[in-house]
Amino acid sequence: MSQNATSGFTHFDPSGRARMVEVTEKPDTVRQAVARGEILLQPHTFALVRAQAEGTSAAGADGTPGLAKGDVLGVAQVAGIMAAKRTWELIPMCHPLPLTGAAVRFEFDEDRHAIVITATVTTVGKTGVEMEALTAVAVAALTIYDMCKAVDKTMRIGNIRLIEKRGGKSGDFVAEEQAGARPAGEPLP
Amino acid sequence: MSQNATSGFTHFDPSGRARMVEVTEKPDTVRQAVARGEILLQPHTFALVRAQAEGTSAAGADGTPGLAKGDVLGVAQVAGIMAAKRTWELIPMCHPLPLTGAAVRFEFDEDRHAIVITATVTTVGKTGVEMEALTAVAVAALTIYDMCKAVDKTMRIGNIRLIEKRGGKSGDFVAEEQAGARPAGEPLP
Amino acid sequence: MSQNATSGFTHFDPSGRARMVEVTEKPDTVRQAVARGEILLQPHTFALVRAQAEGTSAAGADGTPGLAKGDVLGVAQVAGIMAAKRTWELIPMCHPLPLTGAAVRFEFDEDRHAIVITATVTTVGKTGVEMEALTAVAVAALTIYDMCKAVDKTMRIGNIRLIEKRGGKSGDFVAEEQAGARPAGEPLP
Amino acid sequence: MSQNATSGFTHFDPSGRARMVEVTEKPDTVRQAVARGEILLQPHTFALVRAQAEGTSAAGADGTPGLAKGDVLGVAQVAGIMAAKRTWELIPMCHPLPLTGAAVRFEFDEDRHAIVITATVTTVGKTGVEMEALTAVAVAALTIYDMCKAVDKTMRIGNIRLIEKRGGKSGDFVAEEQAGARPAGEPLP
Amino acid sequence: MSQNATSGFTHFDPSGRARMVEVTEKPDTVRQAVARGEILLQPHTFALVRAQAEGTSAAGADGTPGLAKGDVLGVAQVAGIMAAKRTWELIPMCHPLPLTGAAVRFEFDEDRHAIVITATVTTVGKTGVEMEALTAVAVAALTIYDMCKAVDKTMRIGNIRLIEKRGGKSGDFVAEEQAGARPAGEPLP
Amino acid sequence: MSQNATSGFTHFDPSGRARMVEVTEKPDTVRQAVARGEILLQPHTFALVRAQAEGTSAAGADGTPGLAKGDVLGVAQVAGIMAAKRTWELIPMCHPLPLTGAAVRFEFDEDRHAIVITATVTTVGKTGVEMEALTAVAVAALTIYDMCKAVDKTMRIGNIRLIEKRGGKSGDFVAEEQAGARPAGEPLP
Repeated sequence: MSQNATSGFTHFDPSGRARMVEVTEKPDTVRQAVARGEILLQPHTFALVRAQAEGTSAAGADGTPGLAKGDVLGVAQVAGIMAAKRTWELIPMCHPLPLTGAAVRFEFDEDRHAIVITATVTTVGKTGVEMEALTAVAVAALTIYDMCKAVDKTMRIGNIRLIEKRGGKSGDFVAEEQAGARPAGEPLP
Repeated sequence: MSQNATSGFTHFDPSGRARMVEVTEKPDTVRQAVARGEILLQPHTFALVRAQAEGTSAAGADGTPGLAKGDVLGVAQVAGIMAAKRTWELIPMCHPLPLTGAAVRFEFDEDRHAIVITATVTTVGKTGVEMEALTAVAVAALTIYDMCKAVDKTMRIGNIRLIEKRGGKSGDFVAEEQAGARPAGEPLP
Repeated sequence: MSQNATSGFTHFDPSGRARMVEVTEKPDTVRQAVARGEILLQPHTFALVRAQAEGTSAAGADGTPGLAKGDVLGVAQVAGIMAAKRTWELIPMCHPLPLTGAAVRFEFDEDRHAIVITATVTTVGKTGVEMEALTAVAVAALTIYDMCKAVDKTMRIGNIRLIEKRGGKSGDFVAEEQAGARPAGEPLP
Repeated sequence: MSQNATSGFTHFDPSGRARMVEVTEKPDTVRQAVARGEILLQPHTFALVRAQAEGTSAAGADGTPGLAKGDVLGVAQVAGIMAAKRTWELIPMCHPLPLTGAAVRFEFDEDRHAIVITATVTTVGKTGVEMEALTAVAVAALTIYDMCKAVDKTMRIGNIRLIEKRGGKSGDFVAEEQAGARPAGEPLP
Repeated sequence: MSQNATSGFTHFDPSGRARMVEVTEKPDTVRQAVARGEILLQPHTFALVRAQAEGTSAAGADGTPGLAKGDVLGVAQVAGIMAAKRTWELIPMCHPLPLTGAAVRFEFDEDRHAIVITATVTTVGKTGVEMEALTAVAVAALTIYDMCKAVDKTMRIGNIRLIEKRGGKSGDFVAEEQAGARPAGEPLP
Repeated sequence: MSQNATSGFTHFDPSGRARMVEVTEKPDTVRQAVARGEILLQPHTFALVRAQAEGTSAAGADGTPGLAKGDVLGVAQVAGIMAAKRTWELIPMCHPLPLTGAAVRFEFDEDRHAIVITATVTTVGKTGVEMEALTAVAVAALTIYDMCKAVDKTMRIGNIRLIEKRGGKSGDFVAEEQAGARPAGEPLP
């Protein structure tokens, strides 16, 4: 049964102990990953964050200035990018990778009062960057939580998953987003 | 409108820029937070992790030895606890807090092939530790993802929320878990 | 001569080796420090950063929306606050301190094309937080440099100094800003 | 005399100050290092750790389940691997290296009540990874110490040395383990 | 106006949010940067640091022993080199780079009671290392400040700028040091 | 048997998983720990390090200047102190503690060509600082190894143990150094 129990788990050595998988012999190739997740807010909190973030573009419509300086999403975005770079410090068996690009963007899902977070991370390396993209999403969501928790105690972070992965021997992966899982109105990455 | 847009957001100064909220005058009190989240796996992956983790207790039933040494959940638990301690390095406006206790535990939700992760964090300090508990859950989930991603590309991390928070001026908080949100068979914390 | 050479240097033990000064017996008191510094830009770069940062308030005057989302100063401010918390990791003999408040703000010195950075840091502890405030200023300035370096290669970071320090046995300190040293038009902290 | 005093010390510049050695012109090659060390325990502590770690394999022999979940060695192993990745943050003049593999394993030396720790680290880079392997051993040993210190105050960590080093211009190195130095019954790496 | 406000700012995506610039397609080339800055001390403090640092070379002239063990500049130099390696953790949009060389040196500007700090950093990578060199200078200066602050409360860190940058598509850059800006008697790097 | 296997191991919860022990209810008291260890060098390496470190005091005897600037031990000492502060980031179940004092000193054991490293760490907190003192010793030893490894491939780090521990409910501890274990000529701490 031991064989079955670990079969497919590359993170374990023959004696059953965890290890950082050997990727020494793999070539350096361009790799990109896109991950997505969301945070569900109370309608009031959702409106506050949205007003703050869209202050200026809303201003475009009606001439009213906003106050986007240092907004919640601006802070969350910086946090997500910084966390992506430190993923290997957080996830024990992750390889350190010199990221060559990282971006985090936000969309508002009006119907569900959700902020949808998408992170795109790139490297030239021997392993993929899906963990880096997922970590960026998780930490950006946690940062939104932190900055809104004084006004909302029932937020929920969820639906964190890989959307796309390119490069590497195992080939490209594009998530087949099921109708129910994809937030209404959310564009493909 | 600027006033409305930030009202209640303690993380912003009067000019609209983010800051780390002043807690200097708050007393040091015992504070505890419990957070919970889950990772949904393919049935096959779920079975692998479960077999690996329960090797020994399963062994208790049928005399078959398992191989719990360095199992996926053991690594995830260490990662969650270590991340809890470093929360203030990840979340920009979080206060550094000297944690006085941290634990992460796992339950298997057979029906949904979900591993339910619960983190309990304690401190004696001037602010609460909900972000620390939520971060522990998120990083434990990401670690499970990392160690299973070779065999499962459609995992999903979700339902990360605060379950309970004790201590501090704002009073205790206990989440009113709605039927639909609470994974079947999950015991209260 | 050895005595003279180190007299007053509390960071050295009797044999001349550096150490982290003993503060064990000192009481925990409220301590605050304000530090200030500046970055001098080319007129063109100064105008770009200012337009980006003041987009919305400028918009208040003339009805034109700006685009403050994720502006240079917003990123620099987050970087400064995060660095303040990690000062003790960077400065070898600094004591770790649980900060209870941190803020970074910016002013534009039109005449000198300088962005003036002021950091205020608070703790309840056994030593002061001047290094934390100074580090916040330095890292905020470096972040502005980083984000503008594609368009300006002759920026200069300077004038980083302590403005004010309150709490602790050595008494309060308020810098006597000399006319020549204080940037024109800069308000007192 | 100054010349003699530093001759061979590549970590110093001509004026006698430490520096991070220039490896810019060196080619990227596969490099591996194996380090080993041990921690000596009281017989009682040794028995506790061993029982905990071997719970399951022991179970193979006699049908008795163990409780390897989250055992001392499992935690120590994760700590060792994570520390290997952060070696360059700890050792001032170490170059940052993107590790491509890391593993830590344990053996029980019954006669001496010692746990023998072996770390193997790999990279493709311009310098060797002996410091990474040695750091993994040291931190794994410190972690065992931490988890056993409530029951044993006289543990001793020792015998940390390089066993093998492959790759790089200076050629391969294999330690000539002297009889007295090699723990009884310890297999070659 | 939005276009103008961000034109040239590569650190922003089309929607105005900060990102880590994509350098994926850039080739790995040798890159070096030299940065410089200074800390101005009170005459008494300047004399103390100088006596401590030059103990031995002064000794060369007059036979008097100094006490260079663990001097202020020795600690500052280690701090500067260690900070250079962690620049990407501090500056949000900086790419992680595996440094291949780093050195920090000090000169005494007698006339202005200034310690002039020069950092030289090298890598083989896709982006330049000017931020790493500037960060090394800033943290070395902050460390001197920390170790002297018990005897001097009016120190000032300044004049931090790029001196030289080699490698990369944008070509080499050598600062045209203006007479007024270059400290008296300071040699070119 | 499960009970026996973990009895006394406070780092495990009832289900056998590791946790950070709850110290919430413990009072804050002054705590100090002294740890010691050593690194054994080849005679030639030992002479080099000693000449470099004692340059100036030797100079006191015979008028010959040394070159203590940035010596091996100066760098190792800074590394040890910095590592002590970060112990809780390295050792998974260690509590974060705000250190209030840290010092590392070195002695030369001529007969065995060993450098003996002693670290003293202090805090006011709920748990002891023995792990911080032991970590300081280990990292100082690793740093010496790193800076000498170009000239000596057979160094050995060992004998890392707790010498003294004061404060806390479990009472003071002073190691009963056995004749064989204590390096010749080493003074008591």
